[in-house]
Amino acid sequence: MVKTNGKKIFDLLGADAVFTTCEYLKRYLTGFLTEGGFVLVDKDGTRLFTDARYTEAAEKLFVGTEVTVVETGKQRATDVLQGYKKIAIPFAQTSYPEYLKLSETGAEFIDATPAFENAMSVKNEWEIENIAKACDIAEEAFLQLLPDIKEGMTETEVAALLEYNMRKLGAQGVSFDTIVAFGAHAAVPHHETGTAKLAFGDEILIDFGCRINGYCSDITRTFLFGDDKKHEDFKKAYEAVLGAHELVKARLVSGMTGKEADAIARDYLTEQGYGKLFTHSLGHGIGLNIHEFPSVSPKGETTLVDGMVFSDEPGVYAKGEYGIRIEDTVTLQDGKAVSFMSKTDRKLIVL
Amino acid sequence: MVKTNGKKIFDLLGADAVFTTCEYLKRYLTGFLTEGGFVLVDKDGTRLFTDARYTEAAEKLFVGTEVTVVETGKQRATDVLQGYKKIAIPFAQTSYPEYLKLSETGAEFIDATPAFENAMSVKNEWEIENIAKACDIAEEAFLQLLPDIKEGMTETEVAALLEYNMRKLGAQGVSFDTIVAFGAHAAVPHHETGTAKLAFGDEILIDFGCRINGYCSDITRTFLFGDDKKHEDFKKAYEAVLGAHELVKARLVSGMTGKEADAIARDYLTEQGYGKLFTHSLGHGIGLNIHEFPSVSPKGETTLVDGMVFSDEPGVYAKGEYGIRIEDTVTLQDGKAVSFMSKTDRKLIVL
Repeated sequence: MVKTNGKKIFDLLGADAVFTTCEYLKRYLTGFLTEGGFVLVDKDGTRLFTDARYTEAAEKLFVGTEVTVVETGKQRATDVLQGYKKIAIPFAQTSYPEYLKLSETGAEFIDATPAFENAMSVKNEWEIENIAKACDIAEEAFLQLLPDIKEGMTETEVAALLEYNMRKLGAQGVSFDTIVAFGAHAAVPHHETGTAKLAFGDEILIDFGCRINGYCSDITRTFLFGDDKKHEDFKKAYEAVLGAHELVKARLVSGMTGKEADAIARDYLTEQGYGKLFTHSLGHGIGLNIHEFPSVSPKGETTLVDGMVFSDEPGVYAKGEYGIRIEDTVTLQDGKAVSFMSKTDRKLIVL
Repeated sequence: MVKTNGKKIFDLLGADAVFTTCEYLKRYLTGFLTEGGFVLVDKDGTRLFTDARYTEAAEKLFVGTEVTVVETGKQRATDVLQGYKKIAIPFAQTSYPEYLKLSETGAEFIDATPAFENAMSVKNEWEIENIAKACDIAEEAFLQLLPDIKEGMTETEVAALLEYNMRKLGAQGVSFDTIVAFGAHAAVPHHETGTAKLAFGDEILIDFGCRINGYCSDITRTFLFGDDKKHEDFKKAYEAVLGAHELVKARLVSGMTGKEADAIARDYLTEQGYGKLFTHSLGHGIGLNIHEFPSVSPKGETTLVDGMVFSDEPGVYAKGEYGIRIEDTVTLQDGKAVSFMSKTDRKLIVL
């Protein structure tokens, strides 16, 4: 059963009500995706105001939860908010005109964005289950893909096949546009998947993920399509990236900051002579958004605690030559880092 | 070559500069998709402020256009905006804290949202080309799907296969989560594609689309998986919906309002006895967003003009029994409605 988060956010904020029109925050509060409408939480529970398109399915989902559905007719947010003195709204997810409109109620408004960011970064059991399933499907789809990769296929064809495998396995969509990069394209961390054709000896980097009930998985694997014996530098760098990736899993414990976690990988890669080629952060929080709290970067001041979910993705990029990234979605459990990925190899695969 | 829209928007607004951080508005102005950063248009041209992830690809794309790339280091928007007295920003796509931050510049701010909405609703040649390609791929993928639909397949499996076909044909992603509804599920206009299995005699409703350079296609087809001779009501309603759909194409001319366009279909369906079962609008604008201006609904006051792109999608829904929707993406050209769809039948298909 869906585990909703309205009460959690309400208790954190100390306002008379929490209000939002933001799609992913509404989904976070209720577990249900709707276009339009709004969610209002007060001491009596969580109410989803939505239209006839969604009421039937929402009512079914909310059985046994604190959430109720209200079909909005001509009811406006400003009417529903009458009577509350202090209302928490997420400032960063509220547009300027929406703020002006809400101000007409005369209530005091406090910012709910930091509370949402913090609360969303620590997942409940249901959220962890969804992420685990999204990770499992991503891995299984990757394993099904490997034997179907053939010389002459384009990056887009490989992406299409991988996405198809995830969909067939029950994914509700992708977490983000799948990145498939052949050869030197892998040196561009955000390469746009295109029409390049696969040749013998090419390296292949695939960064992908899928969604279950809105929750994302995120995984990257780098491997070789045949070994043309010209990959000495690549293989050396691969070992360094793998070393950094595994060291994070071994040493990261609850109570460290994002910055300290990032340093585990960064210091190791620097020792190995690749520090300058590790051009991005170690990781990012993962949940309903593919990038969310906490930050696991040299600027990450947040303390990492049990229940947080983020990526462990060191990378090394040699422009015009190769790019390597090895990424798992991980969580902190009983003080330690645990990967959601158990089916796919991190050791270099040569097809 | 990409046709950019910075100058068009700047000329409409009469401000010293146009500024936005909104992802789809940045893409509209420059033709290029970026995460983070901002776009600034002034009398000297359009500048995309972005980071090292994107600069190389952006520079390549912008050759021959009015757009230049600036790699942002520690440069802040508020610094770049110094010296402009009157700045147009899209209020509805600006968050409340962003507005407060921009206000520190001391400039006068005017709302660019209506100008964006109006300008984006009329497509340039390059935008039309992208939409036409996205429509062509969607149709072709549907035709490739039909022979592969088999008894016992789930809704999700059919969606997965259709999306795979679109991807293989060059689509860069879907316009929205594909809706596949079997049997009475089709009576729910926003049915969530699930695990229902296809049986002989079921009706199938598929609402789908894909993207080319960000631009969407949108198409719905309703058909039968074998004829069990129990579909008299369905077939009668199908003819009525088809009649409404075709009547819109025949009678809609530039200069009508969205409301008048909607009435063509609504009046016809009412005459045929289905008025109350047509529970949504005739259509919506289509572009970088799957739902944008103009509104083609009973409330649509905007005048429809050449170059606009929107859906023609009348529907009839009998709860617990059947749902029928027939949708093309259409444009106005030389005063008349022209469909982008030419390959797939609107007449009832029985597989």
